[in-house]
Amino acid sequence: MMKIEAFQPILERYKVIFFDAFGVLKSYNGLVPGIDRTFAHIEAQQKEYYIVTNDASRSPMELAEGYHRMGLHAVRHDRIVSSGMLAKEYLDLKVSEGIVAYLGTQNSAHYIDSSGLHTLPVSAINPANIDQVNALVLLDDEGFNWFDDLNKAVNILRKRTIPAIVANTDNTYPLSGNNDVSIAIGGIASMIESIVGKRFIRFGKPDSQLFMFAYDLVRQQPSISKKDILMVGDTLHTDILGANKFGLDTVLVLTGNTLPDDAETRIRSTGIVPTYICHSAVIG
Amino acid sequence: MMKIEAFQPILERYKVIFFDAFGVLKSYNGLVPGIDRTFAHIEAQQKEYYIVTNDASRSPMELAEGYHRMGLHAVRHDRIVSSGMLAKEYLDLKVSEGIVAYLGTQNSAHYIDSSGLHTLPVSAINPANIDQVNALVLLDDEGFNWFDDLNKAVNILRKRTIPAIVANTDNTYPLSGNNDVSIAIGGIASMIESIVGKRFIRFGKPDSQLFMFAYDLVRQQPSISKKDILMVGDTLHTDILGANKFGLDTVLVLTGNTLPDDAETRIRSTGIVPTYICHSAVIG
Amino acid sequence: MMKIEAFQPILERYKVIFFDAFGVLKSYNGLVPGIDRTFAHIEAQQKEYYIVTNDASRSPMELAEGYHRMGLHAVRHDRIVSSGMLAKEYLDLKVSEGIVAYLGTQNSAHYIDSSGLHTLPVSAINPANIDQVNALVLLDDEGFNWFDDLNKAVNILRKRTIPAIVANTDNTYPLSGNNDVSIAIGGIASMIESIVGKRFIRFGKPDSQLFMFAYDLVRQQPSISKKDILMVGDTLHTDILGANKFGLDTVLVLTGNTLPDDAETRIRSTGIVPTYICHSAVIG
Amino acid sequence: MMKIEAFQPILERYKVIFFDAFGVLKSYNGLVPGIDRTFAHIEAQQKEYYIVTNDASRSPMELAEGYHRMGLHAVRHDRIVSSGMLAKEYLDLKVSEGIVAYLGTQNSAHYIDSSGLHTLPVSAINPANIDQVNALVLLDDEGFNWFDDLNKAVNILRKRTIPAIVANTDNTYPLSGNNDVSIAIGGIASMIESIVGKRFIRFGKPDSQLFMFAYDLVRQQPSISKKDILMVGDTLHTDILGANKFGLDTVLVLTGNTLPDDAETRIRSTGIVPTYICHSAVIG
Repeated sequence: MMKIEAFQPILERYKVIFFDAFGVLKSYNGLVPGIDRTFAHIEAQQKEYYIVTNDASRSPMELAEGYHRMGLHAVRHDRIVSSGMLAKEYLDLKVSEGIVAYLGTQNSAHYIDSSGLHTLPVSAINPANIDQVNALVLLDDEGFNWFDDLNKAVNILRKRTIPAIVANTDNTYPLSGNNDVSIAIGGIASMIESIVGKRFIRFGKPDSQLFMFAYDLVRQQPSISKKDILMVGDTLHTDILGANKFGLDTVLVLTGNTLPDDAETRIRSTGIVPTYICHSAVIG
Repeated sequence: MMKIEAFQPILERYKVIFFDAFGVLKSYNGLVPGIDRTFAHIEAQQKEYYIVTNDASRSPMELAEGYHRMGLHAVRHDRIVSSGMLAKEYLDLKVSEGIVAYLGTQNSAHYIDSSGLHTLPVSAINPANIDQVNALVLLDDEGFNWFDDLNKAVNILRKRTIPAIVANTDNTYPLSGNNDVSIAIGGIASMIESIVGKRFIRFGKPDSQLFMFAYDLVRQQPSISKKDILMVGDTLHTDILGANKFGLDTVLVLTGNTLPDDAETRIRSTGIVPTYICHSAVIG
Repeated sequence: MMKIEAFQPILERYKVIFFDAFGVLKSYNGLVPGIDRTFAHIEAQQKEYYIVTNDASRSPMELAEGYHRMGLHAVRHDRIVSSGMLAKEYLDLKVSEGIVAYLGTQNSAHYIDSSGLHTLPVSAINPANIDQVNALVLLDDEGFNWFDDLNKAVNILRKRTIPAIVANTDNTYPLSGNNDVSIAIGGIASMIESIVGKRFIRFGKPDSQLFMFAYDLVRQQPSISKKDILMVGDTLHTDILGANKFGLDTVLVLTGNTLPDDAETRIRSTGIVPTYICHSAVIG
Repeated sequence: MMKIEAFQPILERYKVIFFDAFGVLKSYNGLVPGIDRTFAHIEAQQKEYYIVTNDASRSPMELAEGYHRMGLHAVRHDRIVSSGMLAKEYLDLKVSEGIVAYLGTQNSAHYIDSSGLHTLPVSAINPANIDQVNALVLLDDEGFNWFDDLNKAVNILRKRTIPAIVANTDNTYPLSGNNDVSIAIGGIASMIESIVGKRFIRFGKPDSQLFMFAYDLVRQQPSISKKDILMVGDTLHTDILGANKFGLDTVLVLTGNTLPDDAETRIRSTGIVPTYICHSAVIG
């Protein structure tokens, strides 16, 4: 039998805490009740925290504002590390000219836009400009016509030998108010990848690159090693698998994707084993 | 090196010919030129033919009318065996009551409708009738709003433990006039299958059940065995793989999916080996 | 909640019963206690039965003898339909000359040998005879040196563009006496298939071809349709999925792979739904 | 058409060069002729180099000695970054006690052994010590009996909910003297992973963690950014995909896995695009 432990004594043993966002700090109903106490404690104890999230649809600034609106004012934008930041870094380093076509809202493109490239929605690609398209980025499941633009994205990738980037590994996300889900851009990306038979570049947990990005920020202060960092997440195959592999200790919380009744079965069947299991990331 | 042979001498050695439709008899530009001579010869020699096709969007009657409109009057509807017929047989045998929800055009549903079940488009499923939905059938990529109805289909399958049927194994189909393709319902089905994690029931080549359906029609006349049947197709992983496995001799033609320059590489890399390779199914 | 029903009243409604073997009639401890009563009843009621099994390591004659030794004398060899029979039919129809290389025991090869081809163990293939190898058949996980002969099989398939046939879809089989399993030839086949990147020809449930083979035997008597046949199996993704798709009614029994506590969860998570669930195929 | 460029002018534009080993510096026939000139030039120009290799079967010291024996004395052990080093780091950070069971040679285990854990070959695991096994590591395809120990590894993972680590993503490796290959421990790992249905922890290209490990060594000197680093490799889906994603410029060389005739087709079909293509990493 797996033991469910209290979160606070575990927290005390680490200097830096990495939190997943959805299912740990918030749900579609708003903040996880009491999570502000955890952040107050972290601040009081002079620990550090980072929010490590698979989200390419908004900038860290917008993500931070979202927490502030919900009442969690402790969250600072420079402590948010998102897979969208990796997509942006990739474009900065590897795509120096031409058009970056995207699937997503205009707002989601605004963030990657700042790199100086010309971003255009897939709907605006036509025979006159297709030869200048040097990357395709999948950002969000909204903001475009699925029938028209998914078919168009397939044909762009058949004609152009260019990188396709997706910064979200989720297949679905929960909808508010009932038990329904919505297909996420990660699920759409898998369909297009298998249809065109090409290999997409994926950023986001469980891939190590996102953990590394956060770790690089932490390391700027001396005397922090991987042993001092704790990852807190609700999803075995992203948060826990990725942080385990990166060498961090991990807490699985039961406020999101993994239900209390399922936790043990899922851990056994996947072989993905957290260091600890806690009801939530809330302290007493 | 693989030898490309003339089609006619091969044809003479068999009593029954199974043809794939798209890429063998027709393309998006209309009939393959000269294919009517092949059918005239088959008739003159008192051979039999069947068209064995992965198509669940129209009835055999409508498919035959399509050939007639293009000028191939020899094609009879009772010689067309489609994966849609298997979907219909499945519903007849296994779903005796309730609603069959579908993705596709109203016309595509008309064919399966005749079984006496109540067919409704996915868009018409709501909290009041969802408990009566006893099957989901994926028929065509048109006739519905992708964003609304693909999300709805995912949620129907999350709520109802029911069979999901797809009678098309293709990921894409070619569009006329240029080199573009369109995402087929088979590609959409794979996305939904992987998102909900459930196993769909798939009908169509390379699965043996479609060949068996055609073979059952042939066997009604005595003295025909599998040795007397030749399958002619343009696609290695559906036509050739499926017919090989069913025990039939096979001809790969180069008028469709497999290009002359690629044929040898693809055969070697997939290990799917046709008995013969011919330029086309047209005779001199 | 799913209802568990008594087997006998269900049995009475069908004229022909298809049984899976392992997990339904027998386990590694011998016969399922009381299963002889089921066969006595079937005989008394003049129903028909067939045993439909994924086994390519022995002939139907040898399989029947195994039942007789265990004390189930009612099982006749001509009522056993195995995936090995499909492999044999394939070789008869599609490979007319040369060497058939095999992985398995000498005894397993004896059965396919009768087709007049020259069968040789993979270990006997060498530079002098490799050009005559026209098929590779994977029969059993024993009878060869894994390190030497799996590496050799990979290299045969890299050099020869030939069909590779596997008539077992299982990854593992249970060992007697404890809870251990052994890697089955089906699991080995998947590894070699993915290493060489070629498509293997697989026979066995859930593929329709095995059900069709049994159905062809049944149909020799008039007035039997698919509606009159019941498939009884212990495994959702082979027995139940395959028979459902073939259009048969199905019973899931809980004496084998599917445990009573898991049945409902597995049915919901896979979407593979049996017509009935029974504790066993034993009658009162 | 893709342009093949001379290597030296490209080399001059970067301060640090990452080399893949097999297919770039050496083949099964020994060193790539002239590669010593490249290393002499790198030294003369005061550039830095690292060898970034998917190899968990030997320590960096042993790997360096291999180069020295072949005559490439410029290669220093502290410039070799192997996926085995990541496996070792993982065990140091995440497995603090008990037995680490391994598949591989005794020598391959010697390297991970130094972390203070008790390493035992899978063959030495028995009912008396299995409860102390806290990790399974797959190191090499030699040094054990495949039939006995692969079956045993499957059963260890069925009984113990522990991490399984594999530090080699290759399915096969080439054998010397002819065109044959041998199944690599990466291919074996995939088979066991799919049989037990658990998620293995994999280290090695294309995963970012290996590039990060090398990058961390480079960064110890100031003023080096990702823009200053060039990755040279022969394999699109490991060297090029991984380095591209990490944000490095890449050279595909044609002295290994990717043949000159295939390069363009493979780049188009995979969508993995190197910054440059060169015949080899040898300079004039």
